[in-house]
Amino acid sequence: MSSFGRIFRISTFGESHCPGVGVVVDGVPSRLSLSAEDIQRQLDRRRPGGNKLGTERNEADQVQILSGIENGLTLGTPIGMLVNNKDQRPGDYGSMSQVPRPSHADFTYQQKYGIHASSGGGRSSARETIGRVAAGAIAEKYLLETYGIEIVAWVSSVGCHDADNIDMNTITRSHVDANEIRCPDSLAAEKMTAEIVAAREAKDSIGGVVSCVCRHLPAGLGEPVFDRLEAKLAHAMLSLPATKGFEIGSGFAGARMRGSVHNDPFVKKGNRLGTTTNHSGGVQGGISNGEPVYFQVAFKPPATIGQEQQTVNFSGEETILAAKGRHDPCVVPRAIPIVETMAALVIADLVMIQKIRE
Amino acid sequence: MSSFGRIFRISTFGESHCPGVGVVVDGVPSRLSLSAEDIQRQLDRRRPGGNKLGTERNEADQVQILSGIENGLTLGTPIGMLVNNKDQRPGDYGSMSQVPRPSHADFTYQQKYGIHASSGGGRSSARETIGRVAAGAIAEKYLLETYGIEIVAWVSSVGCHDADNIDMNTITRSHVDANEIRCPDSLAAEKMTAEIVAAREAKDSIGGVVSCVCRHLPAGLGEPVFDRLEAKLAHAMLSLPATKGFEIGSGFAGARMRGSVHNDPFVKKGNRLGTTTNHSGGVQGGISNGEPVYFQVAFKPPATIGQEQQTVNFSGEETILAAKGRHDPCVVPRAIPIVETMAALVIADLVMIQKIRE
Amino acid sequence: MSSFGRIFRISTFGESHCPGVGVVVDGVPSRLSLSAEDIQRQLDRRRPGGNKLGTERNEADQVQILSGIENGLTLGTPIGMLVNNKDQRPGDYGSMSQVPRPSHADFTYQQKYGIHASSGGGRSSARETIGRVAAGAIAEKYLLETYGIEIVAWVSSVGCHDADNIDMNTITRSHVDANEIRCPDSLAAEKMTAEIVAAREAKDSIGGVVSCVCRHLPAGLGEPVFDRLEAKLAHAMLSLPATKGFEIGSGFAGARMRGSVHNDPFVKKGNRLGTTTNHSGGVQGGISNGEPVYFQVAFKPPATIGQEQQTVNFSGEETILAAKGRHDPCVVPRAIPIVETMAALVIADLVMIQKIRE
Amino acid sequence: MSSFGRIFRISTFGESHCPGVGVVVDGVPSRLSLSAEDIQRQLDRRRPGGNKLGTERNEADQVQILSGIENGLTLGTPIGMLVNNKDQRPGDYGSMSQVPRPSHADFTYQQKYGIHASSGGGRSSARETIGRVAAGAIAEKYLLETYGIEIVAWVSSVGCHDADNIDMNTITRSHVDANEIRCPDSLAAEKMTAEIVAAREAKDSIGGVVSCVCRHLPAGLGEPVFDRLEAKLAHAMLSLPATKGFEIGSGFAGARMRGSVHNDPFVKKGNRLGTTTNHSGGVQGGISNGEPVYFQVAFKPPATIGQEQQTVNFSGEETILAAKGRHDPCVVPRAIPIVETMAALVIADLVMIQKIRE
Repeated sequence: MSSFGRIFRISTFGESHCPGVGVVVDGVPSRLSLSAEDIQRQLDRRRPGGNKLGTERNEADQVQILSGIENGLTLGTPIGMLVNNKDQRPGDYGSMSQVPRPSHADFTYQQKYGIHASSGGGRSSARETIGRVAAGAIAEKYLLETYGIEIVAWVSSVGCHDADNIDMNTITRSHVDANEIRCPDSLAAEKMTAEIVAAREAKDSIGGVVSCVCRHLPAGLGEPVFDRLEAKLAHAMLSLPATKGFEIGSGFAGARMRGSVHNDPFVKKGNRLGTTTNHSGGVQGGISNGEPVYFQVAFKPPATIGQEQQTVNFSGEETILAAKGRHDPCVVPRAIPIVETMAALVIADLVMIQKIRE
Repeated sequence: MSSFGRIFRISTFGESHCPGVGVVVDGVPSRLSLSAEDIQRQLDRRRPGGNKLGTERNEADQVQILSGIENGLTLGTPIGMLVNNKDQRPGDYGSMSQVPRPSHADFTYQQKYGIHASSGGGRSSARETIGRVAAGAIAEKYLLETYGIEIVAWVSSVGCHDADNIDMNTITRSHVDANEIRCPDSLAAEKMTAEIVAAREAKDSIGGVVSCVCRHLPAGLGEPVFDRLEAKLAHAMLSLPATKGFEIGSGFAGARMRGSVHNDPFVKKGNRLGTTTNHSGGVQGGISNGEPVYFQVAFKPPATIGQEQQTVNFSGEETILAAKGRHDPCVVPRAIPIVETMAALVIADLVMIQKIRE
Repeated sequence: MSSFGRIFRISTFGESHCPGVGVVVDGVPSRLSLSAEDIQRQLDRRRPGGNKLGTERNEADQVQILSGIENGLTLGTPIGMLVNNKDQRPGDYGSMSQVPRPSHADFTYQQKYGIHASSGGGRSSARETIGRVAAGAIAEKYLLETYGIEIVAWVSSVGCHDADNIDMNTITRSHVDANEIRCPDSLAAEKMTAEIVAAREAKDSIGGVVSCVCRHLPAGLGEPVFDRLEAKLAHAMLSLPATKGFEIGSGFAGARMRGSVHNDPFVKKGNRLGTTTNHSGGVQGGISNGEPVYFQVAFKPPATIGQEQQTVNFSGEETILAAKGRHDPCVVPRAIPIVETMAALVIADLVMIQKIRE
Repeated sequence: MSSFGRIFRISTFGESHCPGVGVVVDGVPSRLSLSAEDIQRQLDRRRPGGNKLGTERNEADQVQILSGIENGLTLGTPIGMLVNNKDQRPGDYGSMSQVPRPSHADFTYQQKYGIHASSGGGRSSARETIGRVAAGAIAEKYLLETYGIEIVAWVSSVGCHDADNIDMNTITRSHVDANEIRCPDSLAAEKMTAEIVAAREAKDSIGGVVSCVCRHLPAGLGEPVFDRLEAKLAHAMLSLPATKGFEIGSGFAGARMRGSVHNDPFVKKGNRLGTTTNHSGGVQGGISNGEPVYFQVAFKPPATIGQEQQTVNFSGEETILAAKGRHDPCVVPRAIPIVETMAALVIADLVMIQKIRE
């Protein structure tokens, strides 16, 4: 439901238009140095930017740490975090309350719960991800400091424009943040930007793909048979709003290959065994093998668009819907820290479970 | 670990070369009519066939129900099931024990557990899926009898050969089983068969894609925010051996589309709201909307091939590995019942959780 | 860890001296009428009273609902609740930080986490129960409105003074709250009060027992074999600070009886089968049978006392410890709403799981 | 439901009169030396003995290990275990199927599931505990070999006869098994035996109490706030058939004491801090403190007795019930290994979770 993880475990709460959104993080190791700044960094990357690509809202999204820390050190007890909802304008959404937005969650929430938040997307809105990002920022810090694990995501496609020449072994968040669209291939970034601007001008939206690499994972992470590393990553990514697909390593392209080509031969790399290629994406049998773990996540175009759409209201009567309010034409630039932090939550949980075996 | 599901919950056990493999299924509704035959049907579809496409083993794989049933009715108590491992030939694998097979789990299991089964794939082998299929066959029966839910999977590609003209609304398991490769597009099936035979003759293997449709799901299934229907399906599918990708509805192709095209407008369908298109794949906001749920799963080519491969042994010394023994050149035909039953396990669990809200 | 329940599930956070304490409640049914007042009532009963029996702190402990409600109705989404910590006086505890209080959690938290909150009891303090009470108040409301379930706890002993003549079938919270000590046997209440006053004057503390009855539970609640109703109740009660024992129905006295006396014969009660006696405490085989469920919980005397105690500091050096600050000499009066709400959490969760079978 | 534990996790299956009973144990550490003999020892202690105290059945109860072990070492994968039900005589119970036995689970299972096993106690019968004992025997071995943890239970009372002079620091299983009733106080044992014989001759049954000590636990075990060590122990013990109470350390007697008496002062014990007394029962704040953990469990008299009982059948019609078949007049002697192994399961799980923090 609203909890994720077995040991490093989060429980999120809050929707677009209530007092706040937040998270309780259980299982955080004690004596970890932690401050609000450590968390704010990723929250700021997630925040709508007020630029030509994102929505125009300017939400401060300042995190407040409620518990679990004393004198800058974690106590090993649950860390509660809260971000207030400052910028509530329910009126903007009022006209839509009788008409379920096509491909949005209005209809299914009503079917499931017999009620749905009167405005915005309620719990299905992107705002829900704030709790995940705040929690994942802690996971990231733990993984980096304890194991040197680095997680970097970037926009690898918007519409039909694909990034090229990305070196997964060296890419950093600085490279990614060098442009607003968060695609380190600057040529592709320009085309992507133009695509988003065009979609916005057409009162339309556009989908995209986020790629992510996790480096320096120790071999041995992942819990067969159901909690394989890739299964947990897939679960995490498909739990994000607007996602339609996940692939690890060679992914769907790998399904077209022969084993003699796809197999990653072992080779000695210093003190450990590594592989010469990495079609596996760093996992074999659901367990990390010490090579970089990389995966891709497909995001559909946002459902809420300004164009007129022929649809029906909850009573089944035909109507025309044209969304008002502020809506992202493309989610992938803002999805970058969300994908990274969700990956961190998965890996932190598996790292801690594997510690049992040491 | 080795359990899956929250209410309709399975715990599997067993590996290739121990006395048996099996499963404990908890949370099965009481008073469900159930016999070994109900389970055997899918186990038989999963069983290696002894034909030109599969391996040559002929495992009877007869299920024994150990508990939870009296007079042909479930008691509501856990159902234990066991399939004996009859055909153990560990000798076939002996030569490989010092050399981790490239892209196989030998290396990662050793890294994780400090030990690995001396032969076969141990717990990472396809034989582990027997417990899942046996459990999922119960879930299927429950879903069909109680809600009329039908789940049908088929081979949609092998290597570069794709099925075409599949009607998701009408396809049945009879259509699928009409040929050995389980692709209801007979023209594509021929090409796929040739591809597999060619791979086998080259002592190689080949990947493929399985598609699956789940029809007649009621609206309302899926538990936001983490246990969305697509997140649970992705988790389930990526927990299967040899999988590299998952997509629901429009999937990665949807990431290239505009919202005005991708959105599924609502329309009145009898007493309910339906949609005119189904790019969403039957889910919105992680909850089923009453339209067919469909998804695809990418399987890599099997790692164990007869060709010589340059690699290193556990000590890092260079060696040539050429697998002996019996190995499937392509897993997708046998994966059909596995994908179906895993989907059934996911849906049965979500159906039961949603019953709480009725 | 800090979560409890399978479907109606809570995650608490916060310790004595951080910004606040609170809870996230997942799985609350939608369309339940709910306001802060519904929750405040039990929080007020839990609050230290500023009278001669309790501590002298006056904490407002006003709950703030952060999410999950709109227009006075639950949305089915997680309900976040927060109570600020207003009255922090860490200085009072400073002298104790180098000396683990005997029978308190200072030592074990340090051993477990390698760190412990510098003041108060941190997460082991009674203040942590605020989140439980807030969540349980929702469970109570749901159970009362939906099933007519009533839960009433009372003080049945303080020190050696036992309540007598309590009628479990008719006792109400009004009866219980008629005196400060929350013992509806007024004669015993006087003796208990005197005992507490005496303990306080001696800078000492005293233990006690809380009894609780849960009426109008439908038959069928409890999930064999591990989540039997009494097992979950025992788990819940022994998770409360300062508890040392739990018994249901006849309890330890039942262990001295013969079966012919202990057995509860069935008899027809209107449309259902009931029992003539209720040594079972309303459960058989771990499942409610429709009779009142009743149980008792033993609370030890509070560990923090003003008397001088000979002990050692963390370094093992002998020292004298005499606690300063404000400390309850007896916890059982304030434990009443805590026991009730924990019982409500257990029952609400089991009610919801049993709904799956209907 | 039928699973217990978070990391060291068991799932049991089977009832009295199906083909077998068993368990799947997940999370067992790899490379643990393990054989069927290790498990059989506790199963043999649990087995009805065919002597004057127990029932007359002679069940071999030989365990078969189905998976998870190779060459005498655990693989880290799930260990499946099965014990066949050899001695099924359903006819003995036939006469009872229309009349729910007073204080037995016949009625509540029927209410819960709408069906109940036609004979014996089904899943509520003591036979279900075989899976627990088999799994717990593995936990015991792990705890003893890895941490030197010893767990010893004994009969501390039968009816009104209490054991005296038991030294918790030195008692061993050999002492306990020195007599059939498993009470190391030989004088009390004689009286207990006489009591059981008398109950049997009167076609009646009698209750009793089991005490248990767990020695050499490291400090730090237990997961506040909900999974405190005593909460998990209470959960485990109250999940056993026929239990009515649990107390740890001073228990209900502690509720009568003053803090100045009850508190356990710290003292230096070699390299660690210990306590001079142990009213706490080895736990403070829900976490082990390094002193012996001890607790007591109350068992009611068995419900199935040969005496005639006035009751009603499922239709509410008055009838006389006199049980036929073989029934234990007192469960506590056989409960000894069950209590020990359940304690081992709790501790093993908590040990493994605490390893994460090292």
